[in-house]
Amino acid sequence: MHQDTTFLYKADPVRGRDWAKVFAREAPGIDFRIWPDIGDPDKVRYLAAWEAPDRIAERFPNLQVLFSTGAGIDQFDLDALPAHVPLVRMIEPGIVDGMVEYVVFSVLALHRDMPAYRRQQAQEAWRPLQVRAAHERRVGVLGLGSLGQAVLGRLRLFGFDCAGWARSPRSLEGVQCYAGPQTLDAFLARTDILVCLLPLTDETSGVLSARVFDALPYGAGLVHVGRGQHLNDADLLAALDAGQIGEAILDVTHPEPLPAGHPLWRHPRVWLTPHIASMTQPGTAARVVLDNLRRLQRGEPLIGLVDRAKGY
Amino acid sequence: MHQDTTFLYKADPVRGRDWAKVFAREAPGIDFRIWPDIGDPDKVRYLAAWEAPDRIAERFPNLQVLFSTGAGIDQFDLDALPAHVPLVRMIEPGIVDGMVEYVVFSVLALHRDMPAYRRQQAQEAWRPLQVRAAHERRVGVLGLGSLGQAVLGRLRLFGFDCAGWARSPRSLEGVQCYAGPQTLDAFLARTDILVCLLPLTDETSGVLSARVFDALPYGAGLVHVGRGQHLNDADLLAALDAGQIGEAILDVTHPEPLPAGHPLWRHPRVWLTPHIASMTQPGTAARVVLDNLRRLQRGEPLIGLVDRAKGY
Repeated sequence: MHQDTTFLYKADPVRGRDWAKVFAREAPGIDFRIWPDIGDPDKVRYLAAWEAPDRIAERFPNLQVLFSTGAGIDQFDLDALPAHVPLVRMIEPGIVDGMVEYVVFSVLALHRDMPAYRRQQAQEAWRPLQVRAAHERRVGVLGLGSLGQAVLGRLRLFGFDCAGWARSPRSLEGVQCYAGPQTLDAFLARTDILVCLLPLTDETSGVLSARVFDALPYGAGLVHVGRGQHLNDADLLAALDAGQIGEAILDVTHPEPLPAGHPLWRHPRVWLTPHIASMTQPGTAARVVLDNLRRLQRGEPLIGLVDRAKGY
Repeated sequence: MHQDTTFLYKADPVRGRDWAKVFAREAPGIDFRIWPDIGDPDKVRYLAAWEAPDRIAERFPNLQVLFSTGAGIDQFDLDALPAHVPLVRMIEPGIVDGMVEYVVFSVLALHRDMPAYRRQQAQEAWRPLQVRAAHERRVGVLGLGSLGQAVLGRLRLFGFDCAGWARSPRSLEGVQCYAGPQTLDAFLARTDILVCLLPLTDETSGVLSARVFDALPYGAGLVHVGRGQHLNDADLLAALDAGQIGEAILDVTHPEPLPAGHPLWRHPRVWLTPHIASMTQPGTAARVVLDNLRRLQRGEPLIGLVDRAKGY
């Protein structure tokens, strides 16, 4: 034990070993440790965690930065984290690429009626459905952070009529941007396929409810890749049964795993995946963290620094 | 009846009415007619058909160009068509866009294990599968015509490791191009997801057989958007059951519609759609044909002119 600086990793240990290799190669001066092997807690200056340990401030008095190993930080109880420690979300290419793949897959599936064709196949029915051109299909993305922007950038190349909504004004090439709660209804009214990529905050919890579904055109599609807590399951099931929502593709539920027997498993117009849209790639994630440590040393702003007042 | 030139349309009459509107607006000097209302057969200089009428040369002695209303011309018996009449395939943006959408959907579905997740949902099983980065996924397209090129151009943007095979040498940016039968095995050996976009000719009929499947890596995926006659159904079913082919997404079968009770309907690792990958959009198709008529008048080469010796 020669080093004075410990980087403590507290998430999936298999992935942790990939992080360890990257640190050994690119930052051999840092003592990289995987939870629960914490070593001397006074030396822990950096902590990367999916779920934060209890009593962080007391246990790690010299902690300088807390990194989330995921794109979100809603798994942390912000009030329990030391206020003076910067909190950093994971913004790395693996997360972005995976999300772009998942959302493009889902939007194309809804655009081209793939759920209906899967049901037709089960009935051995050969029945072509009317194809609409992409420019006639209005896609709307809720949430215009780094993921929402990347998703819209790729969807635009297919010629979809693209819009986005965020709390604060944005300007994205080729995308009609809506800002603030007073514009939400107008955004929803022009959206045939709604993609939810909002951060989970007190304000957005439960946002995917009857109120939002009813503001969409009849038969709209839903792609939900935010967090399970955004979604009011009962409202979605009612909207599906009423035809107000035509099809839903969900990657997140609350709770996860979704319990056996839950009606979302069985609804014929729901496609469900087990929170796999976007996963941190261990190699790139470690490199993104190391890049942020170098920024810290140079006094540059950290990439993914969380504004605790906003909650993302 | 004042005009001396008749354009005769012999395909879906509903779409024909959309063609009629475009002709009325953009080429009012041409007498546009929908089969079987042929008018004076001596005035028929242009024929657009899905299936050719019998005895074309005798019935329409002044025919100057025969247009296929589809991207392929395999529905025509070339020997029964007058040798002096140029034959033109449909190359229009609607066909290309639809094909790009379908193939990107299918490749992403296989890349991200969506068929497996659909089976897991039926069992209410929440089990994330390992995600591979797109650059680790080797996609190979058989056929490098306008559709194959467009598909590869879009797939490249996702970072897939892309290759293509064609009979004659091609050069496409970012795509490893293989040419000729002697390179087929090398192309197949490096292909995790095989996309068939070949034209249907005597040479390519039945090409998707055990010989090709066995040359792919174990568990490879198949996306078939060529013609039903490319595929040896029995060989595919055997390859699926052996695990040699992991999953297959088929848009074409032989015959079409696929008869009830056919094992392809029921195989758990086959996704089937009723020949909908790419459909001619009536508005743009008529404009593409009019553009070709203008090229003819100016003595310029026709877009989509078929080389009858090659058969495409």
